[in-house]
Amino acid sequence: MTIMNKKWTLAARPEGLPKAADFEWRTEELKPLEEGEIRVRNVYLSLDPANRVWMVRDTYVPMVGLGETMRGGGIGIVEESRNSKFAAGDTVQGLICWQTYYTGPGKGFSKVPPVGIPLAAHYGLFGHIGYTAYFGLLDIGAPKEGETLVVSAAAGAVGSLAGQIGKIKGCRVVGIAGSDEKCQWITRDLGFDAAINYKTEDLRVALKRHCPNGVDIYFENVGAATLEAVLNRMNNFGRIPACGMVSTYNRTEPEPAPNNLFHIITKRLKMQGFIVIDYAARFEEARAELLRWHQEGRLQYRLDINQGLESAPSAFRKLFDGSNTGKLLVQISPET
Amino acid sequence: MTIMNKKWTLAARPEGLPKAADFEWRTEELKPLEEGEIRVRNVYLSLDPANRVWMVRDTYVPMVGLGETMRGGGIGIVEESRNSKFAAGDTVQGLICWQTYYTGPGKGFSKVPPVGIPLAAHYGLFGHIGYTAYFGLLDIGAPKEGETLVVSAAAGAVGSLAGQIGKIKGCRVVGIAGSDEKCQWITRDLGFDAAINYKTEDLRVALKRHCPNGVDIYFENVGAATLEAVLNRMNNFGRIPACGMVSTYNRTEPEPAPNNLFHIITKRLKMQGFIVIDYAARFEEARAELLRWHQEGRLQYRLDINQGLESAPSAFRKLFDGSNTGKLLVQISPET
Repeated sequence: MTIMNKKWTLAARPEGLPKAADFEWRTEELKPLEEGEIRVRNVYLSLDPANRVWMVRDTYVPMVGLGETMRGGGIGIVEESRNSKFAAGDTVQGLICWQTYYTGPGKGFSKVPPVGIPLAAHYGLFGHIGYTAYFGLLDIGAPKEGETLVVSAAAGAVGSLAGQIGKIKGCRVVGIAGSDEKCQWITRDLGFDAAINYKTEDLRVALKRHCPNGVDIYFENVGAATLEAVLNRMNNFGRIPACGMVSTYNRTEPEPAPNNLFHIITKRLKMQGFIVIDYAARFEEARAELLRWHQEGRLQYRLDINQGLESAPSAFRKLFDGSNTGKLLVQISPET
Repeated sequence: MTIMNKKWTLAARPEGLPKAADFEWRTEELKPLEEGEIRVRNVYLSLDPANRVWMVRDTYVPMVGLGETMRGGGIGIVEESRNSKFAAGDTVQGLICWQTYYTGPGKGFSKVPPVGIPLAAHYGLFGHIGYTAYFGLLDIGAPKEGETLVVSAAAGAVGSLAGQIGKIKGCRVVGIAGSDEKCQWITRDLGFDAAINYKTEDLRVALKRHCPNGVDIYFENVGAATLEAVLNRMNNFGRIPACGMVSTYNRTEPEPAPNNLFHIITKRLKMQGFIVIDYAARFEEARAELLRWHQEGRLQYRLDINQGLESAPSAFRKLFDGSNTGKLLVQISPET
């Protein structure tokens, strides 16, 4: 029996919001495994803003080559293994890419431990999402009880966790999001103290109202005008974990940068970027804490699951047009 | 005998480069000291880029009020004291302001210890200048042997010290300055490995040539386009001690901010502002080190001394028009 691998390759470097023609649908016959390789039936593909950066620019990873399978993380089931680290039946996570089957050495892959949460939830609570929120907020943000934390893209996968972790640490937490529904979700369900709909409210006025004692930590997911507005409200010795600048990823013109960076000096701010893989040695610590908080009912997640690998390009756009809430996934095949 | 105090007050909030009409020359009769006050005959007034910020904006200190004596640090001799912490004859430093006599409680003033260097040199080597270079580079920059350090405003008072301290710590040091004479001074006399005249060279091309291994530390004095150019050359996990953004202080239009702040994330940069007064508890440590390096011939300074308090407004402009090299001072009265 011949099994076909279906995949999305990168057909063109996107300008602005990625469009259908930037991807190409291809099918290919699966080849027998070579020594050291594993075959994974991909189940959930994670779609993340950083993927957009990988399409156009070398960063901490080389950009995706034209004609190459689009890169992305995900979860799958090992179907066949010629690698002693993995066995058929293992549930694994790693850079499975935008395809139905991953075939390769499984570099950077790890087994997903059974911890009594749904499989898809591993990407809502753990994985690069949970660890990004955990280390960015705790390691760089260093929240102290009673401080004010502002989170942008607060209804996104990372932002919604970062805000809740801020609440667990005793902060006043204010989220910035792009719809009333998102604002209601983070305040009513997740316990944020306040939310600002940046599309209908004046961000500067709203920040002043909701952060009467200024801002001690800004968990930065957006950049540009949002960063500028928050810089004005930062307190002395504030911290800015720089996780993403999603507002700038699809721009075809130069990014309109904040014109008040002098606040970094006069207020003695620390703005520090980070990539979750730098914390790999401490993932177990994060996993244990996140799971405990979740089991205690203090840490919730929302999944936005899109069905079928075919939907990946259109689902991907939801990260940038404001229509995504919580962790965006594509389900490629059944869990079992 | 009536003694008159002469002073410059702030007459208007400057727009762009401060002009003569932004200051007003006034004379007033000195009043007898009240209990707790000291009278200081001001000798050297320090002129610094930060003073420009104080003229228009509340920061870590309130902005100077209209009609108030222009604020500035300096050194003087106590002539009369009704404060038990100071005695007539003491040499002191503090916010003496732009006037011939300081009269007040001497809040924040300290005695200048006799260490065998010329009095004016205290502001070339120590004081807020030396300590700013010392703590900014060592505490935030955390230089390691073999790393590359870029310093902007490298022929300025702080920049010239920061670069030399970088050399002492084993870095490759590249300075950015605004004239060939400045570039020659920092490379020939101060031991910088290379210098870039940003007025005649393409900064991006020159940074690439002089920093073949990228940039690990950027000692930031300038901001805007200079920051943007250096961000492109920063290495992963680079540090940016943010000391000043002098290119932006006189702008009447919004600051043209760097449009590549995403490098902070993808390269995991740390950009951190600081104000030297935050390190007051460690000034003695810095003083001892700076003096030792100076005595060993490894740390030089240059003074730009302008004669007479009357010259203060015109001398002040030298900080912004590129004509100042080394520590800018106004001599108000003789040393003895």
